[in-house]
Amino acid sequence: MVNYQKEELGKLHDIIKLENGKVFLHDLLKLTSCEISINTVPKGFKVPFNHKHKQNEEIYIVLKGNGIITIDGANVPINEGSAVKILPSASRTIENTGNDEMQFICIQAKADSLEQYGLDDAELC
Amino acid sequence: MVNYQKEELGKLHDIIKLENGKVFLHDLLKLTSCEISINTVPKGFKVPFNHKHKQNEEIYIVLKGNGIITIDGANVPINEGSAVKILPSASRTIENTGNDEMQFICIQAKADSLEQYGLDDAELC
Repeated sequence: MVNYQKEELGKLHDIIKLENGKVFLHDLLKLTSCEISINTVPKGFKVPFNHKHKQNEEIYIVLKGNGIITIDGANVPINEGSAVKILPSASRTIENTGNDEMQFICIQAKADSLEQYGLDDAELC
Repeated sequence: MVNYQKEELGKLHDIIKLENGKVFLHDLLKLTSCEISINTVPKGFKVPFNHKHKQNEEIYIVLKGNGIITIDGANVPINEGSAVKILPSASRTIENTGNDEMQFICIQAKADSLEQYGLDDAELC
């Protein structure tokens, strides 16, 4: 039995050519713990709706560019190195307000599902 | 009550100056669903041990550079855009074998914890 699965997504810049500028990893890698999207969106891109979640916490990590995440009506500025956790019940949308493409990763996983992490979950072998 | 939390990690390149070239998000953002590390490691960097997990699935996403993840003795080449899921029980270590820094994100979350995702977990609002 193979204990891993790998996919090559190509250059992160080229994700801009895909539908909505994103690739999802859950189905691609048969994940069982989270969904992950990797996003490269052009100048002026805006998700044209707000959404919230039923169970899942979301974490946005910005790799490149500048924008705004609007969370429950608050405009939260983001740029390279911004890391934002959003609780399931919060309304959110994201916009690229910079002059270049914006790259970000979004992770969703079930709130309160993590029982242990780091050294508590690891064993040297 | 504020439904989000943001931290500024700074330029991803500068993470190379931190201990082990990594920053962890769980404690920083009070995550409840996963642990996330963002890593920028120099040429020649190698994690000097193998480890496995008790509960948590890991996903590595390579942002920049070239290297190898060794999984149960198999050398798996990685580069920009490589996405690798590793089951909890697999032994793993990672090495930067390229000529420049390597940047990658590692997410760990409890295997089989995700109940729904995407549209099934979302509501427009």
